[in-house]
Amino acid sequence: MAPQYAPSLRSRLAPLLLFLQIGFIVIYAFYIEIESNEKVHGITFSDFYPEFQDVNVMVILGFGFSYTFLMRYSFSGSGFNLLVAVMATQWAIILNGIESWYHRGKIRIDLRSLVVAEMCAASALISIGVVLGKTNPVHLIIIALLEVSGFVLNEWLLQTLLKVQPLNSIMLLHIFGAFFGLTLTWILYRKGSKQQFEKEKFSRKTGLFSVLGTVFLWMFWPSFNSILVDNRTPGRRLEAVLSTYLALAVSAVTATAVSVLSSPKGKFNLIQMQSCMLAGSVAVGVSMPVVHQPWEAMTIGFTAAVVSTVGFRYLKTHMLFAFHCHDTCAVLSTHGLPGLLGWLAHLLLQIRDCDDHTKAVRFAVFHICTILITITSSLCMGLITGLLLKWNFWRPPQDKKCFDDQAFWEFPHLAVQK
Amino acid sequence: MAPQYAPSLRSRLAPLLLFLQIGFIVIYAFYIEIESNEKVHGITFSDFYPEFQDVNVMVILGFGFSYTFLMRYSFSGSGFNLLVAVMATQWAIILNGIESWYHRGKIRIDLRSLVVAEMCAASALISIGVVLGKTNPVHLIIIALLEVSGFVLNEWLLQTLLKVQPLNSIMLLHIFGAFFGLTLTWILYRKGSKQQFEKEKFSRKTGLFSVLGTVFLWMFWPSFNSILVDNRTPGRRLEAVLSTYLALAVSAVTATAVSVLSSPKGKFNLIQMQSCMLAGSVAVGVSMPVVHQPWEAMTIGFTAAVVSTVGFRYLKTHMLFAFHCHDTCAVLSTHGLPGLLGWLAHLLLQIRDCDDHTKAVRFAVFHICTILITITSSLCMGLITGLLLKWNFWRPPQDKKCFDDQAFWEFPHLAVQK
Amino acid sequence: MAPQYAPSLRSRLAPLLLFLQIGFIVIYAFYIEIESNEKVHGITFSDFYPEFQDVNVMVILGFGFSYTFLMRYSFSGSGFNLLVAVMATQWAIILNGIESWYHRGKIRIDLRSLVVAEMCAASALISIGVVLGKTNPVHLIIIALLEVSGFVLNEWLLQTLLKVQPLNSIMLLHIFGAFFGLTLTWILYRKGSKQQFEKEKFSRKTGLFSVLGTVFLWMFWPSFNSILVDNRTPGRRLEAVLSTYLALAVSAVTATAVSVLSSPKGKFNLIQMQSCMLAGSVAVGVSMPVVHQPWEAMTIGFTAAVVSTVGFRYLKTHMLFAFHCHDTCAVLSTHGLPGLLGWLAHLLLQIRDCDDHTKAVRFAVFHICTILITITSSLCMGLITGLLLKWNFWRPPQDKKCFDDQAFWEFPHLAVQK
Repeated sequence: MAPQYAPSLRSRLAPLLLFLQIGFIVIYAFYIEIESNEKVHGITFSDFYPEFQDVNVMVILGFGFSYTFLMRYSFSGSGFNLLVAVMATQWAIILNGIESWYHRGKIRIDLRSLVVAEMCAASALISIGVVLGKTNPVHLIIIALLEVSGFVLNEWLLQTLLKVQPLNSIMLLHIFGAFFGLTLTWILYRKGSKQQFEKEKFSRKTGLFSVLGTVFLWMFWPSFNSILVDNRTPGRRLEAVLSTYLALAVSAVTATAVSVLSSPKGKFNLIQMQSCMLAGSVAVGVSMPVVHQPWEAMTIGFTAAVVSTVGFRYLKTHMLFAFHCHDTCAVLSTHGLPGLLGWLAHLLLQIRDCDDHTKAVRFAVFHICTILITITSSLCMGLITGLLLKWNFWRPPQDKKCFDDQAFWEFPHLAVQK
Repeated sequence: MAPQYAPSLRSRLAPLLLFLQIGFIVIYAFYIEIESNEKVHGITFSDFYPEFQDVNVMVILGFGFSYTFLMRYSFSGSGFNLLVAVMATQWAIILNGIESWYHRGKIRIDLRSLVVAEMCAASALISIGVVLGKTNPVHLIIIALLEVSGFVLNEWLLQTLLKVQPLNSIMLLHIFGAFFGLTLTWILYRKGSKQQFEKEKFSRKTGLFSVLGTVFLWMFWPSFNSILVDNRTPGRRLEAVLSTYLALAVSAVTATAVSVLSSPKGKFNLIQMQSCMLAGSVAVGVSMPVVHQPWEAMTIGFTAAVVSTVGFRYLKTHMLFAFHCHDTCAVLSTHGLPGLLGWLAHLLLQIRDCDDHTKAVRFAVFHICTILITITSSLCMGLITGLLLKWNFWRPPQDKKCFDDQAFWEFPHLAVQK
Repeated sequence: MAPQYAPSLRSRLAPLLLFLQIGFIVIYAFYIEIESNEKVHGITFSDFYPEFQDVNVMVILGFGFSYTFLMRYSFSGSGFNLLVAVMATQWAIILNGIESWYHRGKIRIDLRSLVVAEMCAASALISIGVVLGKTNPVHLIIIALLEVSGFVLNEWLLQTLLKVQPLNSIMLLHIFGAFFGLTLTWILYRKGSKQQFEKEKFSRKTGLFSVLGTVFLWMFWPSFNSILVDNRTPGRRLEAVLSTYLALAVSAVTATAVSVLSSPKGKFNLIQMQSCMLAGSVAVGVSMPVVHQPWEAMTIGFTAAVVSTVGFRYLKTHMLFAFHCHDTCAVLSTHGLPGLLGWLAHLLLQIRDCDDHTKAVRFAVFHICTILITITSSLCMGLITGLLLKWNFWRPPQDKKCFDDQAFWEFPHLAVQK
C-alpha cells in the first residue's frame, strides 16, 4: 500500500513550473503594463467586474469541481485544474498581446484582456477533460500551453484570412478544445484501457462535488456568453443573457428526459445529466450573433441536449472500441457535438435572414471555411502535442496508477499531518 | 439489492417533460420576445445583472444544496430542485405576462421578468421542501406548475381586489409556499410514516453539503429582498440590503443560542440551526416596506429566530402526530411562521407610523384581508393539487423507497460507468 | 461512546450570546441609523454592491469552509466561523463608529461601513484559525470581540500618532490577526498537545470541502484588496484587481512547485498548497499603495509563496516544539509571514520611488514605527485575551475532546432526527 516516490513531480514538474513562472515574470517585467485608462470600449470597471468574476468562478471553480467526479481522483481534478488555468491564463495574456507588442512595443492589459485570456484557458481545460486521470501534471501543463498557442494561432488565422470577428472566433473554443483533446487521447491511447480502469467511476460523495461544479457552470454561463458582446448596440447583452438562460433551462429539462429514455434501467445517470444539461449554452454561445428570439435559443438548446445525451450514451463507448479514443469527461458530447450544432444553427439562421441568394452562398462558403480551418488546426496541434507527450521523458503514470490521487498526493492516513 | 426499473420515470416523467418543454417552446415562439429597450424603470442592465445572479444562485444552488441533507437523498435533493426550478421559471414567465399579452398580443421579457419568475419558482421550491423524499419527480413537476399558477392567481387577486403593490404580494411567497406545501402533505399523508423513515436523517457528509446551500442562501438573501425594491426613492435599496443583513446576523446568533437551550442534550442541532438562522430574512422580507431603522430589522430577526427555533423543536413532531402533517424540511418553522411574523410586524409598524386613528383601522382591515386571501388561496390550491396527486396513475414511491436515491438514480457500484 | 452533556454550551454560551445580542440591539436602537444619501465618496450603491458580496462570500463561506479540513471538526469549523463572523461584524460597526458618534451623536452606516466591519471580522477569523479545535465557542466569541477591539484600537493609534491612511492600517489585519492568535495559543498551550491530537488530520472528504473554501478565497481576493481603494484616481481599482490576480496566479504555481520540492515523499500536500497559494494576495494587499507594475505584484507573489511554503513545512513543527505554539491552520505562514513580506516590499518599493534621500529615511522610520506599534498592540491584546481565557470558568474542552464535533453537536446516529 505504501505509495512510491512520484518521480514525475520532483524531477520534472517542479523545475518546469519554476522555469516557466520565472520566465513569465521576466516577460511581464519587460513588456506588460496595466492600462491606466479607466474606460475602454465605453465600458467602465464597475460595469465589467461582476461579469468578470462570474467567468473567473466558472473557470476556477466550475471546471475544477466538475472534474472531481472520479471516485479517487478528486484532489487531482480540482487541484490540477487550478494550476493549469493560471498557467494558461498567464500565457494567453502574452500571446494575445503579441500584435499590440509588435506595433507599440508594449502590451497593455485590462479586465477585458484577462477575460479573453481566461476563455483561452477554458479551451485548454476542455482538452484536459479528455485526458484527465491518464496523465501527470507535467503533461497537463504542456498540453495547456500548446493548446492555448494553437487556439490563439487559429484565431489569428481566422481573423487574417477570413476577417472573422474576434468574439466569433473565441466562441469556437468548445470545438477547438474538444477536437484537440480527442486527437491527443487517440495518440496517447493505452492498450490496457479497455478492461482496466476500475477506478473510473463516481461515488456518492464525489458525485455531489461534481454536481456543485456543474451547477456553477450552469448558473454563470449567461455571463460567459454575454461578457464580450459588444454593448454599443443597446440590448445585445440582455439578449445574450436571456438566450443563454433559456437554452440552459431547456437543456436541463431535455437532458433529464432523454437520459431516462436512453438508460437501460430507466433511471437517471448523474454524470450524463451533468454533461448534457450544459449542451444548450455551448450551442447558443457558438451561434450567438444570429440568435435574436427566445424560441430560437430554446430550439437550439433542445436539439443540443438531445444530441449530447444520445452521444454520451452511445458514442462514448463506440469511440473507445472503434477509434481507441478514451474520453474521460465525455468532452465530445458535452462540447464537441453541441459546438458543431451551434455552428450549423448559425449557418441556417444566417441563410434564413439573407434576402439575397448570392449573399447566402457567400456566407455559407465563408462559414464552412471557418470550421474547416478550426478543425484542421486543432487536429494538427493535437497531433503535435500528442507525439511530444509520447516521449517517456515525461514519465507518464503506470496503468494501475491511473485515476488515483495516491500517485500524486500525500494522504493523512499514510503520513500524519503535523 | 438490485434496484428495480423505476416505472414512474420512463413511462411518466420523460413524456411529461418532453410534452411540457415542447409546449413551452411553441408558446414562446408565438408570444414571447426580448425587450430591446436597454433601460427599463431607470435601471440599466449592468446595475441589475449582479443582483439577478445572486437570486439565481439562491434558487438553483442555495435551495438545491440545502435540500441535500438527507443521508441517502442528496442526488435527488439537488437534481430535482434544478429541474423543478427551471420548469417553474419558464411557466411563471408565461403566467406573469398574460396581462401584457392580453393588451399587446406579445409578452416582452427582460431581466426583471426573469427575476420575478425565479421568485415564483422559489415559492414552488418552498412547497417542495415539505414533501421532499416522499414523492417522485412527476409529482414535483405537477406540484411546481400548480403552485406557481396558484401563486400568480393570488397575486392577481390581491392586486385586483385590494390594490396591493406587486412587490408586497411577491414577498408573500414564503407564506403561500409554506401553507400550500402543508396542505399537500396533509392530504398525501402515508400511514407508515410515523415509525418507518429510518433514512430520514442527515449524515456528516450530507450535513456539510446542506450547510453549503444554507450559507449561500444566507449570504445572498440581501439581494433577494432588495432586488425588486423601487430605486426611484434614493437609499431604499441600501436600506433593504442593510436591514436584511442585520436581521440575518441577529437570526444566526439567536438561533444558535435558542437551539442549545431547547436541545435535551444541550448541544447544537445542525439542521435546526440551518433552518432557523434564515428566519430573520424571511420576516424582514415580508415587512420590508415599513422597516427603516436597523433596530427594527434586528428585533424582527430576533423574534423570528426564537419563534422558528422553538417551532422546529416542538411543532414539527406535534404537527406529525396531531395533524398527520409530515414536514421534511421543517418549512412551517423556516418560512411559514417567520412569514406570518413579518406580516404582523408590518401591521404593527404601520399602525405605529399612522398619525390618524381611522387610517390605522383601515390599514389593519386591508392588511388582514391580504393575509386571509393568501392563506385561503394557498389552502385551496394545495387541496386541489393534493387530491390530483393521490391518483395512483402517477406511481408514488413505495414507503420503503422513500428518502432513497436508489429509486431514481443509476449507481456506479451497481452498473459500471463507462 | 455516548456523548456527555456539554456544560460550556448551555450554561455559558447561550446566556452570553443572548446577552450580547440584546445589548447590540439596544445600542443599535439608540445610536445607529442607515445613511440615506445614496452616493457617498462618489460611489453609487450599484457600483459597490457586487464587490461587497464578494467580500461577504470570502468572510462567511471562504474562511468557514477553509476551516472544515479537520476530519472530525468540519461542522464546528464552518458553523463557529459564521457565528464569530456575525458577532464580530456587529461589534466592529459599533467600534468603527465611535468617532462619528462622539462628534454627531449618531453613527450612520452604509455598505462601506459594513465592508470595513467585515474586514475587522476577517482579522478575528484569522486569529481563530490558530486556536481552532482547542477551544469552545464561548472562547471564540470572547477572542473575536477582544481581537476586533484591539484591531480598531490599533487603527486609531496608527491614525492618531502617525497619520496612517485608513486603508493602509486596515490591510495590516493579516499581521495583527496572526500575531494576536500566536500569542493566544502560546498562553493556552496544553501539555498534552505534542503526541495527543490524533484527530488533527484531514480526510479525503473534508479535504475537498476545504479546497472549496480556499478556492472561494482565491477567486474573490481581488475584490478584497480593491474594494476600499479610492476610485477618485482613475484606474487604481483596476490596478489593485489585476495586481492581486497576478500575485495569486504566481503564488498558486510557486506554492505547487515548492510544495513538491519540500515534501519528503516528493508529493503534493493538500493543506500546505491551500494555505500557501493565498500568500501572494496577502503580501500584495499589504503593499498595495506602491504596487503599480504587473511584475512587481508577480515578484511579491513569488517570494511570498516561497516563504510561506517553506514556513509551513519547517516552521510549524518548530514553533510547536521550540516555542510551545500550536498553530492549527498554519496562520503564521499563511498570513503572518506574507504580511510581513508585504510590509517589507512596501518599504523597499517606496524607497526606490523616492528621489530624495531624506524623504526615504523619513518614510522608513515612519513605516517601521507602523509595524512596531501593530505588533506590540497585537501581542498585548493577545496576552490579555489569553490570560482571561485561562480561567476555568469558561470550561475549556478536555484534551480528548479536542478537534471533535461530538463535543458540541447532536449526531443523527446517536439521536434520531425527527
